[in-house]
Amino acid sequence: MSSVAALGFDAIAPADAAWRSAACRRLDSLTKPLGALGGLETLAAQVCAIQQTLEPAIRHPVAVVFAGDHGVADRGVSAYPRAVTEQMVKNFLGGGAAISVLARLQRMELWVVDAGVDGECASHPRLIDAKMAHGTRDFVEQAAMPLAECEEALRRGRRVIGQVVPARGNTLLLGEMGIGNTAAAALLMHGLTGRPLADCVGRGTGLDDAGLARKRATLAAAAARRAPPADPVELLAEFGGYEIVMLVGALLAAAARRMLIIIDGFTVTVAAAAAARIEPNVIDYCVFGHCSAEQAHRTLLADLKARPLLDLGMRLGEGSGAAAALPLVHAALALFAEMATFAAAGVSEKSA
Amino acid sequence: MSSVAALGFDAIAPADAAWRSAACRRLDSLTKPLGALGGLETLAAQVCAIQQTLEPAIRHPVAVVFAGDHGVADRGVSAYPRAVTEQMVKNFLGGGAAISVLARLQRMELWVVDAGVDGECASHPRLIDAKMAHGTRDFVEQAAMPLAECEEALRRGRRVIGQVVPARGNTLLLGEMGIGNTAAAALLMHGLTGRPLADCVGRGTGLDDAGLARKRATLAAAAARRAPPADPVELLAEFGGYEIVMLVGALLAAAARRMLIIIDGFTVTVAAAAAARIEPNVIDYCVFGHCSAEQAHRTLLADLKARPLLDLGMRLGEGSGAAAALPLVHAALALFAEMATFAAAGVSEKSA
Repeated sequence: MSSVAALGFDAIAPADAAWRSAACRRLDSLTKPLGALGGLETLAAQVCAIQQTLEPAIRHPVAVVFAGDHGVADRGVSAYPRAVTEQMVKNFLGGGAAISVLARLQRMELWVVDAGVDGECASHPRLIDAKMAHGTRDFVEQAAMPLAECEEALRRGRRVIGQVVPARGNTLLLGEMGIGNTAAAALLMHGLTGRPLADCVGRGTGLDDAGLARKRATLAAAAARRAPPADPVELLAEFGGYEIVMLVGALLAAAARRMLIIIDGFTVTVAAAAAARIEPNVIDYCVFGHCSAEQAHRTLLADLKARPLLDLGMRLGEGSGAAAALPLVHAALALFAEMATFAAAGVSEKSA
Repeated sequence: MSSVAALGFDAIAPADAAWRSAACRRLDSLTKPLGALGGLETLAAQVCAIQQTLEPAIRHPVAVVFAGDHGVADRGVSAYPRAVTEQMVKNFLGGGAAISVLARLQRMELWVVDAGVDGECASHPRLIDAKMAHGTRDFVEQAAMPLAECEEALRRGRRVIGQVVPARGNTLLLGEMGIGNTAAAALLMHGLTGRPLADCVGRGTGLDDAGLARKRATLAAAAARRAPPADPVELLAEFGGYEIVMLVGALLAAAARRMLIIIDGFTVTVAAAAAARIEPNVIDYCVFGHCSAEQAHRTLLADLKARPLLDLGMRLGEGSGAAAALPLVHAALALFAEMATFAAAGVSEKSA
């Protein structure tokens, strides 16, 4: 079975339970009923455990969108034509996409990675050319990519982290773009969780009933060609997209650096699940920004025991759900740092 | 039945359906699948409908926390002693409470209103003295306040809006503080919705099982003394708190000014439900910041057909859930204003 060591990646320690406990003790001393800040308390304690401090902070957050095309897209598994992947890369960099707006609003750097877009992306200071090929192969007929390519894509994902994270940067938001990639993600989820394929397939960007039926049939044909391999890297090679594989590499690299990683929607969550199959500790570093409207996302989050911060019926990808959730992390850390204790504020504690 | 006219309040027009439709048309032209921003789209369209513009903006948001004590608190219906209301007022103004931190983080003015705190709150530039009495009467034995006091408290709530909202200010966050006030809110919800009292009662700040049983029995005794009146103002006089009644007055006044009102947790939602019984249009101006862990909140939100923005298991009050949600409103409006259209970005529309 693939492991970080076998792949030549750095080891990933678990988040620090002692710091988590210390954080919980501080939370219980603050002027509020025990646990009354709910998920914001869990979040603050998680960041303390990741950063090994009682002075947690978000420093130089960066959002990275990995983009790639999918051979299977030619089979009509998406409501949009394949050309949209390249067009949206331009839109991300031009400032007009949802993630562009949210990154600007939050004064966050936005990087775009051409992991395997079927087209030539014009160069741009925030575009990283990591193109593996002009889209994957059609996984109904053959593996999406050779195993060696998959391993190279993992390494390129790791390299991206080295390029985009500034010195002292400790927070990463991950997004993706790729027409057809919820189809790939569905097969990967099926392979990773063992759940019936039908439970893993959704409408993506907005397929109608006929489109959904076509997507289901297409994916069933792919799964019939080759049963999903148990090894996560073989599985990624078989059904993955280049953007998904690079996300896995980025996740492993960011967790090894003890970064806080904010996960976006279904496709990025599938990448997180694949990374966790390689090294379970990676999940300790992940905050799940939202639960998307893509039907399988809720199930997958539950399988990962993940509690998403938002549940707003978003289904856009690009990192938009992660970016929408970032202010909650800021809020959690500000509350942790700045609230008065019962003792300092002269507030009576619980009478019961 | 009480009405804004009978109470001498300004009329409240519905939000503007034509602007909402225009907003939805613009949303559908932006570079994303139709509806893919989910609740953020609904939110942007709501603000357009409130502000009657396609250039919606949050201007000078203010958070107001209404504080008051409850005679019923002496019966052990809260996990905290009554003195905490006054102590927390000091904490709000001193900057150490959760709402203080969140208001500072978001550069929002925080005002505190002494609606009926049992104690003397030291004067402070951001404290408004609107004290009706040192807490309400014990509603197990008699009405919480005379009807004339209730009407005066409504007017004082309206007056607060005149005091705290700056010129061109268009956004209001509402919170409350009052040991025992989820007990009052439960009786009000029972009266407003007709739901069984047991479905309206929760653990508040963290009652244990014995405390919860005591709270239920106490509220059942109050409801047995007098069946909840159908008229919302009579109901508020019977079981309300001064802070809850002032919230109702503030809601009616803010909606009449076409302000965006961000509602906090269970108690403020009960105030919104009472205001809506006086004038249903008030709900058009309300955004529900979150669903709290107080058990009845989810039911009440569903009764109001309200979709809360957050669902993080928070149960603190003070306006903390409203303040935590405010960045989502900023995000929704930034996306609405700044995203590129398909045409401008040269992105292909749906192929199906």
